[in-house]
Amino acid sequence: MRSGTTFAAGYRAGGMHCGIKKHGAKDLAIIASDVPATAWALLTRNQVKGAPVIVTREHLRSRETRAIVVNSGNANAITDDGLDHAREMTNEVGRALGFAPSQVLIASTGVIGVPLPINNALRGIRELAPTLDADNGSDASDAILTTDTGRKEAQTTVDIGGKTVRIGGCGKGAGMIHPSMATLLVFITTDAAVPKPVLRRLLTEANENSFHRISVDGDTSTSDTLILMANGASKAPEISKPSGKRFDILLEGITTVAQSLAQQVVRDGEGASKFITVRVTGAASEKAAKQVAMTIARSSLVKTAICGEDANWGRILCAAGYSGVPLEVSRVALNINGEPILVRGRLAGEEWESTVAPTLKQRDITIHLDLGAGKAASEVWTCDLTYDYVKINAHYRT
Amino acid sequence: MRSGTTFAAGYRAGGMHCGIKKHGAKDLAIIASDVPATAWALLTRNQVKGAPVIVTREHLRSRETRAIVVNSGNANAITDDGLDHAREMTNEVGRALGFAPSQVLIASTGVIGVPLPINNALRGIRELAPTLDADNGSDASDAILTTDTGRKEAQTTVDIGGKTVRIGGCGKGAGMIHPSMATLLVFITTDAAVPKPVLRRLLTEANENSFHRISVDGDTSTSDTLILMANGASKAPEISKPSGKRFDILLEGITTVAQSLAQQVVRDGEGASKFITVRVTGAASEKAAKQVAMTIARSSLVKTAICGEDANWGRILCAAGYSGVPLEVSRVALNINGEPILVRGRLAGEEWESTVAPTLKQRDITIHLDLGAGKAASEVWTCDLTYDYVKINAHYRT
Repeated sequence: MRSGTTFAAGYRAGGMHCGIKKHGAKDLAIIASDVPATAWALLTRNQVKGAPVIVTREHLRSRETRAIVVNSGNANAITDDGLDHAREMTNEVGRALGFAPSQVLIASTGVIGVPLPINNALRGIRELAPTLDADNGSDASDAILTTDTGRKEAQTTVDIGGKTVRIGGCGKGAGMIHPSMATLLVFITTDAAVPKPVLRRLLTEANENSFHRISVDGDTSTSDTLILMANGASKAPEISKPSGKRFDILLEGITTVAQSLAQQVVRDGEGASKFITVRVTGAASEKAAKQVAMTIARSSLVKTAICGEDANWGRILCAAGYSGVPLEVSRVALNINGEPILVRGRLAGEEWESTVAPTLKQRDITIHLDLGAGKAASEVWTCDLTYDYVKINAHYRT
Repeated sequence: MRSGTTFAAGYRAGGMHCGIKKHGAKDLAIIASDVPATAWALLTRNQVKGAPVIVTREHLRSRETRAIVVNSGNANAITDDGLDHAREMTNEVGRALGFAPSQVLIASTGVIGVPLPINNALRGIRELAPTLDADNGSDASDAILTTDTGRKEAQTTVDIGGKTVRIGGCGKGAGMIHPSMATLLVFITTDAAVPKPVLRRLLTEANENSFHRISVDGDTSTSDTLILMANGASKAPEISKPSGKRFDILLEGITTVAQSLAQQVVRDGEGASKFITVRVTGAASEKAAKQVAMTIARSSLVKTAICGEDANWGRILCAAGYSGVPLEVSRVALNINGEPILVRGRLAGEEWESTVAPTLKQRDITIHLDLGAGKAASEVWTCDLTYDYVKINAHYRT
């Protein structure tokens, strides 16, 4: 079945255990396009970068991209031979599939500071490359996981010029989950035809409304990588400029896939027991709305309160108050799960707590803060901060 | 015994239970100077401000200050009559002690959004004011506490122009400890003679090197208040300008007291089991050093690793990497508790973990990162992130 990165036409993929992870879990993935494709990547801004991030940045200069190789279990970061190893892997993929090395992008996730078992990786590439198949997208989706509790895939279709265009992708958990484990990795493929400059805009805008709207613990990793590929196999008309109706339709499709993956990442956040949507409305600008929403989503005190199923509106207002956005308490309205708590900065009534409290037992929680200052809105997603978060992160190596 | 805010000459204080907290715990404090004093306050930048913060800001316009009134158990924030209540309290202190209301500063900490039991507070002020005594500083120190596990006082003496100048103070816990509980409150008094503009500089600079260098959970409250009073009772020569040797001596004394209180606050951080010093050296500027140190100190992943006694250097480097300060891994050196882990960006040796691991059982942990980029340094203090932090914050109201 075509799923994840092989949902779109003209892609093959595969995943296997090559000997980087222990216990036989899949740790090597290759995703390849049957025809020359365009690609763009958004890479970690952390100044401590894994070698694959550096190599991918170099290879983005190539006009055409044909494949992505990914390993999990080792981030190939901060080791002596990291750059050589990353280049050997892209070379090997190129050799095995008949592409130039610069047409191969690379991402790695796992332990930092430990040399990559390069011979296992190269042997794996030679073994995996001939087996790539449109039905093996889910193997690739599995092979990129680390501490994730499950596979993360999303797909959708849109209509462009009367042709069905497919968009699919896979991702792995944020949360800087392991000790020296990174990372957010996301790979999205489409069979739309998109020149590189337009693809770049699509990815940047979709990212702004998906992965830039989630927070697990605020830490960013050495290896965060988000790649979008487009190969034109749908035969839909090329989207030649970063505006217009067709651009908007494709952007919406890519954003849908990206948002789904982003939300799956948050739901699977380390130790998460609740999925929290923070919606801020009535802001003077979308930027202001997002800033307030992200500040609330990042507050350890808000996140622990939700973990404890406590409708602690004081903490929510307090976080909004230090977001840096002007705030007038007397104009603010606050709902949790649709139940009013504050209206014009005052408690909605004597009974507010008894109506809100039962709804906090749900797994999905929506915090809705209206600032009463304008018409702009934004929504972000986070998870609660739990005992298990501390447990996973305190005792991983012991 | 003179301690805390009555360690310096010419101050009296007192603390009592007036009926704001349950179970008879002290909840009202007054600190007063026998002679006219100067005062300055640094107040929360949170846009959701408690009423006392607004009143204190107004009263700072007065040239002379005579007293500070503080209640715990209720933040007097986001209620209809908050401003009236705060003013009634400063009026009542003025009436009882013969000062103008504008000579009285005020701070409150506790639940947000619940009306202050103003009659209890006013009755308490009338009862407490006549009993103020130089020996009752510790009662005031106790009455400002909320979830703190113990009293926080510090004091020191310096020599100015051949006279002994005393500096003392008390504080209460940060960590936004309770659900809608704030707050960092700190009151420092000295018997030095300091005109208001110079006092302002002293407080700002001491704060920069003490409370601006601690992090418990990154949340800031509606009520944070740091007040410095100087009454000249030491008869030491006035410090008339914000520079020179005498200014530096007094600044060092005030900074000593402020740093001690800041560190006590961190040690008593919610659920803290470790006291962590993050020292960054070899930076291009002191600002850069502090920025890197604070980013490490705020990382949930670093804080949980220390909780788990795990020498997780990858997380430390990773946090440094996203601090926004340029970083070259190949120049970096990292020690924990004096044991080398990284030298020039490489592992210090095969045995690094076996030498570091045993030292992580200590309560006090020092992380020392040298950036190899310059000569500037900074040091900040934080605590670990523990199961108990989540427990305290998730289940306070249930």
